[in-house]
Amino acid sequence: VRAEIVGIGTELLLGQIANTNAQKISSALATIGVDVFFHSAVGDNLERMSQVIEGALRRSDVVITTGGLGPTPDDVTREAVAKVLGVGLTRNEDLAERLRSFFERRGRTMPESNLRQVDLPEGAVAITAEGTAPGFYVEHQMGTLIALPGVPWEMGAMLEKTVLPLLRERAGLMVTVSREVLVVGLGESHTHERIADIVDEQSNPTIAYLAGYGIVRVRLTAKAASEDSARALIEPVEKDIRSRLGEFAVVDGGSSLPQVVGNMLRRRGATVAVAESLTGGMIGAALTDAEGASDFFLGSAVAYATLAKREVLGVPEDVLDSNGPVSEQTARAMALGAARVFGADLGLSATGVAGPAEQDGSPVGTIYVGAHLGDRTEVRRVRGYGDRDSVRRIAVTAVLDLARRVLEA
Amino acid sequence: VRAEIVGIGTELLLGQIANTNAQKISSALATIGVDVFFHSAVGDNLERMSQVIEGALRRSDVVITTGGLGPTPDDVTREAVAKVLGVGLTRNEDLAERLRSFFERRGRTMPESNLRQVDLPEGAVAITAEGTAPGFYVEHQMGTLIALPGVPWEMGAMLEKTVLPLLRERAGLMVTVSREVLVVGLGESHTHERIADIVDEQSNPTIAYLAGYGIVRVRLTAKAASEDSARALIEPVEKDIRSRLGEFAVVDGGSSLPQVVGNMLRRRGATVAVAESLTGGMIGAALTDAEGASDFFLGSAVAYATLAKREVLGVPEDVLDSNGPVSEQTARAMALGAARVFGADLGLSATGVAGPAEQDGSPVGTIYVGAHLGDRTEVRRVRGYGDRDSVRRIAVTAVLDLARRVLEA
Repeated sequence: VRAEIVGIGTELLLGQIANTNAQKISSALATIGVDVFFHSAVGDNLERMSQVIEGALRRSDVVITTGGLGPTPDDVTREAVAKVLGVGLTRNEDLAERLRSFFERRGRTMPESNLRQVDLPEGAVAITAEGTAPGFYVEHQMGTLIALPGVPWEMGAMLEKTVLPLLRERAGLMVTVSREVLVVGLGESHTHERIADIVDEQSNPTIAYLAGYGIVRVRLTAKAASEDSARALIEPVEKDIRSRLGEFAVVDGGSSLPQVVGNMLRRRGATVAVAESLTGGMIGAALTDAEGASDFFLGSAVAYATLAKREVLGVPEDVLDSNGPVSEQTARAMALGAARVFGADLGLSATGVAGPAEQDGSPVGTIYVGAHLGDRTEVRRVRGYGDRDSVRRIAVTAVLDLARRVLEA
Repeated sequence: VRAEIVGIGTELLLGQIANTNAQKISSALATIGVDVFFHSAVGDNLERMSQVIEGALRRSDVVITTGGLGPTPDDVTREAVAKVLGVGLTRNEDLAERLRSFFERRGRTMPESNLRQVDLPEGAVAITAEGTAPGFYVEHQMGTLIALPGVPWEMGAMLEKTVLPLLRERAGLMVTVSREVLVVGLGESHTHERIADIVDEQSNPTIAYLAGYGIVRVRLTAKAASEDSARALIEPVEKDIRSRLGEFAVVDGGSSLPQVVGNMLRRRGATVAVAESLTGGMIGAALTDAEGASDFFLGSAVAYATLAKREVLGVPEDVLDSNGPVSEQTARAMALGAARVFGADLGLSATGVAGPAEQDGSPVGTIYVGAHLGDRTEVRRVRGYGDRDSVRRIAVTAVLDLARRVLEA
């Protein structure tokens, strides 16, 4: 089964949002062995939308659209699908009833314009709304068309409840499994030099690289009749790659550094607290991204102002005076302060200069990260590159990498 | 000028990353009056990549690709472009020299495989590398093709330095200007009911809606011969819309809530500190997203564990005991604690249940946000919806909306 994802909405083409729906759907389809060969995005324009949907139906078996199902006049996905399939729109009375009671339950009157949302192309099967916008799917000789709303959580819920069950059967016997080896501290080309011969020899799993923000992901993707057989194809190759990359490969235990660190802490029954400055809260946010973070995460002190580093974290005045807020000594004192203030086993810290201007003589991209565990405190200096956002993300990667190294030691 | 953006990389189709490059380029092109009608994405497959690039060149004047320019064997954008244009690849010696000295300066040896990156299609003009991957562009009878690397900051730097100057001339006289009215506390359909007649009457500016995470953006887009004339077209319509939406429209002062709040604080010479729990650091991260945040942001105490709320923020034990960590009273004490601990003028707080499981009897989606300024403390209860990520983002929106209301009062 070949699927294609069409993002709908002028906000995508004006760059006001990223197409995260395409990412979420692609990632879900990969796990059930549905191949996605193309993404596209088109604006709220009936003609171009119809043209893209028709083109997609010609080259793919399943087309999933996201967006354009709302109540406002710029939402014309229903019309575009009807046009491509050569059918009319009919009001779905079941959905209309649900919509009315949705508003009633909240004690609000339903704007009449909302009923546009329940006018579906003839022959379409309704997908019950999660918020107010229903989705639908149509089985047609050209292929299967599935229309989902653009609001990410509404789309996500329909994907889980309706789309994946619908396509899982159809995808048949082949299952795709992907695994990633996270590499920190070694660039993309040096990573490749170490494993080039393995990459060249392999066709199942295939191996690809993804680099960004101080991390390289080596992705192994295998296809097989079952998840177990796909995993069995990946296992020896992954082992080989890990042994070549040595300490630079993050030990298995999750698909992201926060997950790896979280799982290591959970296994030890240990807790963590953070002291961060240039990252403004991103380290805490990353560690609490996934559910269950309260098992190990106690809190973070975002000490952006220098005074806050002293008052909240207890970084000694002479450390700040003689070394400055961006220094090895301050990172060390912050890691210690985080552990002490929150009463955590592991204290992490990050201080640095995100830019765009240098600070107290330190150039943009200067980063110090620290980790305090037991009676040891380790500090590393890392060079961030790129823009402000990039420097901040590299700092998050660096402190989490130091955390996993300290926990492994 | 019609442009089209082609994202390259199997990681996009497997859903491992979102295509944020398409967003960034689209947003930049909109400001110089270049229309983007389509986005697409394709994997690291020479044949399908060539097919997509060729299709894009047929329907658009300018095609911008991102990705596939790295040193590893899965990077085949250079080959695909050469194939579509019917030319060969030649090594660019200038770029080769730069690449060697890039590695020398860092005291590293250059892996030979890196030289693949400087083999450009014949007739291409090189764009100097920001990291190690150079870009290029080709003027061809089919149209202009511009190939940029996939790493966001490398792409972004080339976009600013080379692509925008190249296209700005060509875009000629028409300029597109977009403005957004941020609406918090009123759903998309209720927003539309209030301004439907204005939307129906308008063709320049056009008006569209974008809803998500507790916020609706009403986007006005005008085209004119100059930025000033485009702004003049927008101004009266925006004013009209703002007056209809009343207090639900966030006063002008930035394109995002953190910007609006930051600018209000800057104008007052006031400082802010945050006490957050369910958001894990996202409120601090949002407030420090843009440069210059040190003008007003002092810090944030991420008190994830209940003990940290008491010890770090000084939330009284009896408040926690009798009301629980997710309560109006705790939000109130946290806002006060944030202001006190960091010595800030404005103290903000957010506590709640992000899910997936309920906590201490409070259902998933329960959110309390607080703001303390001068001798006033205001608390609001907000209902988050959707998944964990959605609930957390709604909490960020809610606390920043409360902040701007308190600062306006």
